[in-house]
Amino acid sequence: MGQLELAPLHFISGKLYILDQTLLPREETYIELQTKEDVYDAIKALKVRGAPAIGVAAAYGAYISMRRELMNMPSSGYVQEDLMTFGNVLKEVCDYIKGARPTAVNLAWALDRMQLGFKNSHARSIKDAAKALLEEAIKIHYEDEEACRAMGEYGLSLLGREMGILTHCNAGTLATSKYGTCLAPIYLGHEQGYDFHVYADETRPLLQGARLTTWELERAGIDVTLICDNMANTVMKQGLIDAVLVGCDRMTANGDGANKIGTSALAVLAKEHGIPFYMFVPTSTIDLNTPSGDEIEIEVRDDEEVRSMWYKEPMAPENVKIFNPSFDVTPARYITAIITEKGIVKPPYDVNLKAIINGEPMREYINFDIRGLSHK
Amino acid sequence: MGQLELAPLHFISGKLYILDQTLLPREETYIELQTKEDVYDAIKALKVRGAPAIGVAAAYGAYISMRRELMNMPSSGYVQEDLMTFGNVLKEVCDYIKGARPTAVNLAWALDRMQLGFKNSHARSIKDAAKALLEEAIKIHYEDEEACRAMGEYGLSLLGREMGILTHCNAGTLATSKYGTCLAPIYLGHEQGYDFHVYADETRPLLQGARLTTWELERAGIDVTLICDNMANTVMKQGLIDAVLVGCDRMTANGDGANKIGTSALAVLAKEHGIPFYMFVPTSTIDLNTPSGDEIEIEVRDDEEVRSMWYKEPMAPENVKIFNPSFDVTPARYITAIITEKGIVKPPYDVNLKAIINGEPMREYINFDIRGLSHK
Repeated sequence: MGQLELAPLHFISGKLYILDQTLLPREETYIELQTKEDVYDAIKALKVRGAPAIGVAAAYGAYISMRRELMNMPSSGYVQEDLMTFGNVLKEVCDYIKGARPTAVNLAWALDRMQLGFKNSHARSIKDAAKALLEEAIKIHYEDEEACRAMGEYGLSLLGREMGILTHCNAGTLATSKYGTCLAPIYLGHEQGYDFHVYADETRPLLQGARLTTWELERAGIDVTLICDNMANTVMKQGLIDAVLVGCDRMTANGDGANKIGTSALAVLAKEHGIPFYMFVPTSTIDLNTPSGDEIEIEVRDDEEVRSMWYKEPMAPENVKIFNPSFDVTPARYITAIITEKGIVKPPYDVNLKAIINGEPMREYINFDIRGLSHK
Repeated sequence: MGQLELAPLHFISGKLYILDQTLLPREETYIELQTKEDVYDAIKALKVRGAPAIGVAAAYGAYISMRRELMNMPSSGYVQEDLMTFGNVLKEVCDYIKGARPTAVNLAWALDRMQLGFKNSHARSIKDAAKALLEEAIKIHYEDEEACRAMGEYGLSLLGREMGILTHCNAGTLATSKYGTCLAPIYLGHEQGYDFHVYADETRPLLQGARLTTWELERAGIDVTLICDNMANTVMKQGLIDAVLVGCDRMTANGDGANKIGTSALAVLAKEHGIPFYMFVPTSTIDLNTPSGDEIEIEVRDDEEVRSMWYKEPMAPENVKIFNPSFDVTPARYITAIITEKGIVKPPYDVNLKAIINGEPMREYINFDIRGLSHK
C-alpha cells in the first residue's frame, strides 16, 4: 500500500484497511476487512480500539459488510421490497457489529447513524442506498477529524508551555481519525513549539499506554516517559505532573465518565495532589439518556489478558481467580473540566452537558473553586 | 533435598538454600548460596525478597560468606590479630552485601547485628567467632518467625470473620521466615476458620502479587482473586474491600512508610473510600534515626523490568524513556494503624513508635476519628 500517514484506518479505493494495533510496537501492519465477521473480530480483539476510531471503523465496516451481503441478496424484482430487505439486513449487520464491545457508546452511535443515513437518503435504488451508506461513513470520519482538532485547540487553551502531563491508556491518533482526543492538545502544542513532558501509564492488562501512546508520541518527536500504572502517585508527588489528560468511552448525563480501567484512581490521586483532571469527550460519546455512571454496564474481559496474553511465561498460577474489568467510572465530582469539540464544559455538568449539546448557553458554577482543585 | 515446608530459605546441615522466587509460579526451585557474590546477586536479583527474608538471608549469608573467606585468610599466628582481621573482613563482607538493596533497612539492620554479635561474643578463637555468627543468624531467623506470628495475632484482632482484604506486592511467607507480615493474620485467621476474600494486586513491574501472593495463598487454600494494580479503586468502590493490608520496607520516626511502588496510591484510595489501611511493620523495620519519608532514598531499578523483563515480545518501543521507582512512601496520615510484633500502634506515630520500641506506654490520640477513616 506504500507509505501511509499514521492512522488507525484508511479507506482507499473502496477497501477498508485497519492498522492491527495488537502487533504494535513490534510491527506496523495494515489488514483489510472484508466481511462483518472481520469487522466484529477486529473490534472485539482490539485491533482497532479507542471510542472514536471504533465508531469510524464500524461505519465503514457496515458499508463494506453490506456490499458483501448484497451478493447474497437476490433482487425480488421490486425496488421497494429490495430496499426494505436492505434496511432489514443493514439492521442485522449493525446489531451484530454492536455486540463486539458493549461499553463503547460510539459503536452503537455510529451504527445508528448509518441506519439513519440510509433512511434519510430516501434512496430509490440499492445502488443509491449503498452510496448513502458510504457518504455517511465518510461524514462520520471527517467529523471525527474535525472534532479532534477542535478538542485539541480547546484543550491547549488550558495548558502551559512546559507542563508535565500524565495520560492513561491511548486516546491519541491511534484511537481516532487524527490527533486523538486527549493527546490532540499535545500534538497541536508540539506543532506550536510547546515543550511538554508526557508521562504515559502503561495501562495493564493490554498495555495500550506502553505499546501505543509512547509509540505514537515518540514517532512525533514528543518527550514521553513510560511508567507503570502504580507509579502515578509518585510522579504526582514529585511535582512532575501539572495536568492529567484522559479520554472517555462514555459519559452520562451527570458528567460521570467511563474510561479505561485505572482512570478513576488517577482522578482521586489528582484531586489529592490538587492537579487538574481533564476528560476529553467528543459529544458523540455523551449519553444524555443515561442518568449516571451507576447505570453503565462495565465490560469484564477474559482472564487470560491478565494471566498470560502478552507473555510466554505464565505470570500467575494457572487456575487463580482473576477479576478483569475493562473500564471504570470516574465520578463527575473529580473532573475539573470536560473538553468537547464544541467547547469546554465546567460544572454543573448535569446542566451544562445538556446545554452544550443543544447549543444553549452554559451556566457558571460560582462555587467552582471550593472543590479544592487548582485550575491553571 | 526432599520435600520442604514452604519458606524463602532453609539452612540445612550448614548449607544455605534459597527458593528462587524469580522462577515462581512456574517452578519451585531451591538454590544453594556459597559466596558473598551469590548472596549479593540473590538479593539484588530478587531471588530472595521481602524485608524480613532479606534480613535473615543476609545474616546466614554473612556467616557462609565468612566461612568461605576464612579459607583465604592465613593465620598470623596470633589469635588477637586473626580476630581483628576477622572483624575487618566481616565488615567488608557486610558492607558489600548491604549494597544489594539500598532501601530495605532490614538488610543493614541484620548485617549490623551480625557484626555486633561477633563483637559481643568476645570470641577467643576464629572457630568461636564463626560460631557466634551462626548463632546470631539463627537468632535473627527465630525472632523473625516469632515476630510474624505476633503480628498475625495483633492484625487478626482488627479483622472480621468474612472480610474482603486487599493486599499489594508480597508480604507473606515468601517474604519472611513464616506466615509473612501482612499476610500473617490471613493465615492465622484461615487456621481458625475465618472466611477471608483476598484481592491481590499484581504489582507491576515484577508482579510479586500475581506470581507470589496468589501462589502462596492458593497453596494454603485461601480464597484469592488477582487484579491489576489499576483495578484497586474499582474493587473498593464495589464494596468488596473491608481493609487494606500491606507490608513495609522502612518506616521513619514520624510513621511514614516506604513500601513497594503503588502502596501510597492504595492508601489515598482507601482514605477516599473510608477503608482502613493497615501497615505491618516489624520493629526492626522502624528507623527512628530518619525523621520522615522525605529522607528515604528510593531505589530506581532497571528500565528493562518495565519494558521486557517478563516478556518475549517487547511491551514498549525499544528506546522509550522509562521511570521505574521501586518503592514509594505512604505518608503517616493515611495509615490507620501500624501493626508491629510488639503491639498495634495508633497515632500520634511520632510519639508512639518511639514508645513501643522503648517499651513505654503509648499515648491515646483523642482526635483519632476526625481523620475520616473507619476503624472497624
